[in-house]
Amino acid sequence: MNRSTTEVAVVGAGPAGLMLAHLLQRAGIDSVAIDIRSRREIEETHRAGILEQDSVRMLVDTGVGDRVLREGSRHAGIDLAFGGGGHRVDFEALTGATVQLYPQTDVFIDLADARERDGGDVRFGVSDVSVDDITGDRPLVRFTDADGARHEISARILVGSDGSRGICRHAFPEEGRRQYFREYPFAWFGILCEAPPSSEELIYNHSERGFALISQRTETLQRMYFQCDPAENVDDWSEDRIWAELQQRVGPNGYTLKEGPITSKVVLPFRSFVQEPLRHGNLVLAGDAAHTVPPTGAKGLNLALADVRVLAEQLERHLRHGAEDALDQYAERALQRVWKAQHFSYWMTTMLHRLPGASDFDLRRQVGELSCVTGSDAGSTYLAECYTGWPTRERDPR
Amino acid sequence: MNRSTTEVAVVGAGPAGLMLAHLLQRAGIDSVAIDIRSRREIEETHRAGILEQDSVRMLVDTGVGDRVLREGSRHAGIDLAFGGGGHRVDFEALTGATVQLYPQTDVFIDLADARERDGGDVRFGVSDVSVDDITGDRPLVRFTDADGARHEISARILVGSDGSRGICRHAFPEEGRRQYFREYPFAWFGILCEAPPSSEELIYNHSERGFALISQRTETLQRMYFQCDPAENVDDWSEDRIWAELQQRVGPNGYTLKEGPITSKVVLPFRSFVQEPLRHGNLVLAGDAAHTVPPTGAKGLNLALADVRVLAEQLERHLRHGAEDALDQYAERALQRVWKAQHFSYWMTTMLHRLPGASDFDLRRQVGELSCVTGSDAGSTYLAECYTGWPTRERDPR
Repeated sequence: MNRSTTEVAVVGAGPAGLMLAHLLQRAGIDSVAIDIRSRREIEETHRAGILEQDSVRMLVDTGVGDRVLREGSRHAGIDLAFGGGGHRVDFEALTGATVQLYPQTDVFIDLADARERDGGDVRFGVSDVSVDDITGDRPLVRFTDADGARHEISARILVGSDGSRGICRHAFPEEGRRQYFREYPFAWFGILCEAPPSSEELIYNHSERGFALISQRTETLQRMYFQCDPAENVDDWSEDRIWAELQQRVGPNGYTLKEGPITSKVVLPFRSFVQEPLRHGNLVLAGDAAHTVPPTGAKGLNLALADVRVLAEQLERHLRHGAEDALDQYAERALQRVWKAQHFSYWMTTMLHRLPGASDFDLRRQVGELSCVTGSDAGSTYLAECYTGWPTRERDPR
Repeated sequence: MNRSTTEVAVVGAGPAGLMLAHLLQRAGIDSVAIDIRSRREIEETHRAGILEQDSVRMLVDTGVGDRVLREGSRHAGIDLAFGGGGHRVDFEALTGATVQLYPQTDVFIDLADARERDGGDVRFGVSDVSVDDITGDRPLVRFTDADGARHEISARILVGSDGSRGICRHAFPEEGRRQYFREYPFAWFGILCEAPPSSEELIYNHSERGFALISQRTETLQRMYFQCDPAENVDDWSEDRIWAELQQRVGPNGYTLKEGPITSKVVLPFRSFVQEPLRHGNLVLAGDAAHTVPPTGAKGLNLALADVRVLAEQLERHLRHGAEDALDQYAERALQRVWKAQHFSYWMTTMLHRLPGASDFDLRRQVGELSCVTGSDAGSTYLAECYTGWPTRERDPR
């Protein structure tokens, strides 16, 4: 057994865990981050692609923003398509904020590169991870490294940023633990295709056949999604069938998609989940380990980054200034944002998707809501604020 | 058979029908209005009590607004109560608009008095009403008057403002008729009580036990509601039980209600309904005959008044200027507002009520939404705009 110590042991080295380690290093706080996946495995997991303004700012302000600014694509709004036409929501005009199209895998790559450059201690491809003594002064993380050597790291604080299938949230005692969740009776069928962009910005498309989302990746590669049954088998969907379905959904709203070879097909399930509290003893949760949102509002990654921004501040207060309430303050502030994001993701989902058993009334009411939101500066601004992200304040925003 | 002619025959002499007759007379257009209920019966049906700013303006501008200004009570906002406290939405500060607390029965009385004063032809307590030849040039209304005499009125246009249980909407041929509706798995338990006001303005109260609405009527009489099962029997609810339930719902949000003898108990079912089209031949629908909303957004009466305002304009265009498209323009403009109101009523309902089978996630998400709306000027303004009423424009607002 190799024994070592650190200040903060981070279980889970995806974007949340690496951003936390990066922020801690900038504050002079020592950390070790571990992940059961290889770096390559994480790099190849395609996920969300929209960064809120404050997420971009966090990357830029901490010195890992060169590529997001250079290769990302600035989006000043979205189209809401319904009832026969498109209606642009101009985020920049309404709120002054924009978002950035930049894939989550690239955020990960930038952070992993920065950790390497800065000599950060990150161990990918570990196994047999456990967390112990989490209510004691020196909680422990134990794991086997990629070369088969066994390790035990003693830390002052453990952070569980190990995603929705991680182990850390299960270390919370059942008594006092609350798990909130909601499954949705549909999923997204996602494709990557080799084609030029069909639109400059994202199109959130309401249709009697179900929701479709037209997004972009590069000048030659596009990402599109359409609502499907969670049990859908991608092999049942030929390229022709996929394109026919997508065109039928967006056509009535006046759009035509540019088609091309489909290089990837995937069914993404929908789930809303929150575990409370976020802290037990000296273990705290951040990102997907604590909460997942359906993808409709593009909040997952942004929420994880907002978590670790607040967490880094509070860890500094705790470790450097002995603030007793720091971890609870983190939990309280993070949860306020989490529930706003849960609301927004649920709102976008239920406003735009065809719910099983939906009556004609429900479809017309959705169009009524979309008309109401896009027909009102206040309604559009409210949506734009949610989409571009609520400001992360230093102190309790209430 | 007593035969007579008029320009517009109005079936249903509630607030919508009487306001239409009133507006038509001001435009020099002849009408007859009939209702199967007696005047007294309508006066004793307690209904909604919140008038949008434009509804008040319509009463005032057309000379029937003395009492609403004198006896009504101006409300500049509402409280949204949730998560342990009250959050005021200040309509006036956010939008410049206010609403007026003034019961629907009083609007009816003012309009009925004006019809009498102006020599309007209104027949209450009729029976055996039928509408015929609605696609011909001279559609007919037949009925038996309160004294037993049979009448046939030949008109140029028939208006069905005979409410949700009226006959006119059934005169639309099934082919081409669309009926949109949604039942809600709960109802409101409404009381009138002899007590001073518990608050100056309405409190929309979210609670784990279900929704409660605290409203007012006079200095000595209050109206309150709480969400209940639609099958609830008012006789099972003693005064003590009612007050205990109400106090338990508002208490956690910091309110205490002033109690007093309960003089009326009623269970109000919830329903969303729209029939389209609003026009067939020379028969048009207005108000509850065409659409009903759940009471949560206080939109029912306001929507009916907005309908007849647009309808009166278009009837004048049609009857005085021969505009061929006038009735269709009415239908189109009215429906845009109807679906916005359906959205708003559904939104307020689903944001504030406990839905059967609601999980803890749903309750927390509602609090997340309420925090998001009240924490944002844009969100609060969006709600305030919906509540105080969208402007009625002269032409298609799109």
